[in-house]
Amino acid sequence: MTSEPIELHAVGNVRSPYKEKGDAPRQGRFSDTISEIVVDERYRPALYQIEGQKHLWVLCWFDRADRAVLRAIPPGTVSEKGVFAIRSPDRPNPVSLCLVDLLEVKDSVLKVRGLDAFDGTPVIDIKVYSAEIDGVRQG
Amino acid sequence: MTSEPIELHAVGNVRSPYKEKGDAPRQGRFSDTISEIVVDERYRPALYQIEGQKHLWVLCWFDRADRAVLRAIPPGTVSEKGVFAIRSPDRPNPVSLCLVDLLEVKDSVLKVRGLDAFDGTPVIDIKVYSAEIDGVRQG
Repeated sequence: MTSEPIELHAVGNVRSPYKEKGDAPRQGRFSDTISEIVVDERYRPALYQIEGQKHLWVLCWFDRADRAVLRAIPPGTVSEKGVFAIRSPDRPNPVSLCLVDLLEVKDSVLKVRGLDAFDGTPVIDIKVYSAEIDGVRQG
Repeated sequence: MTSEPIELHAVGNVRSPYKEKGDAPRQGRFSDTISEIVVDERYRPALYQIEGQKHLWVLCWFDRADRAVLRAIPPGTVSEKGVFAIRSPDRPNPVSLCLVDLLEVKDSVLKVRGLDAFDGTPVIDIKVYSAEIDGVRQG
């Protein structure tokens, strides 16, 4: 049933003021920190026309996360939950999901606000945010 | 600068009425189709307490996508954009991002509404949706 290993390649890396644990906010969304996403030159065509976008999803590979953790107690709470029911960076495939504001594009570097990733973190994907697709339906 | 290959393992698979191209909607969000996520037994502890959640992000590995595509013309438009500026399934690391409504949890099977994935698609991560983290800030 479960398939073979899946191989990803970083498309870039984060340049961030967060160097080690304790520096990064619990969720980037709650901070105004500016980071940069340095996209690898070979993927530069994938940035074409991105400067017209205001909000992006950035998917990173949290290489410092603990992949063996299946349950955890979220910060500010007292009861344990499965990692699929929370936002802990520790999970079997530590792919992070972070909504950022795009401030500037220069060559293959994106300047963004709100990214919660350590300096050097591999970026695996970038997608435009869509209020229609990414919002909870009413009713 | 770019790091070594990253290895992921599917945590489950999609059971869906979409068997081939043409079956799936452009974005699952626009349909009311019911799918199931069959989580591998070894990851079942990661579902603990998930039944209390209404909305989940499901990250899939779109194994039928074309990873060489860097620019594309989004459906309903006429101008080409880089794949990081759109939501095309074709991209260097075809990790899909889909917001679903959680309808039911039975053992290690989640019944969900709104998933745009073919039958058998590997699921790589599940995260709870948070209006606070995942919404665009006003102002």
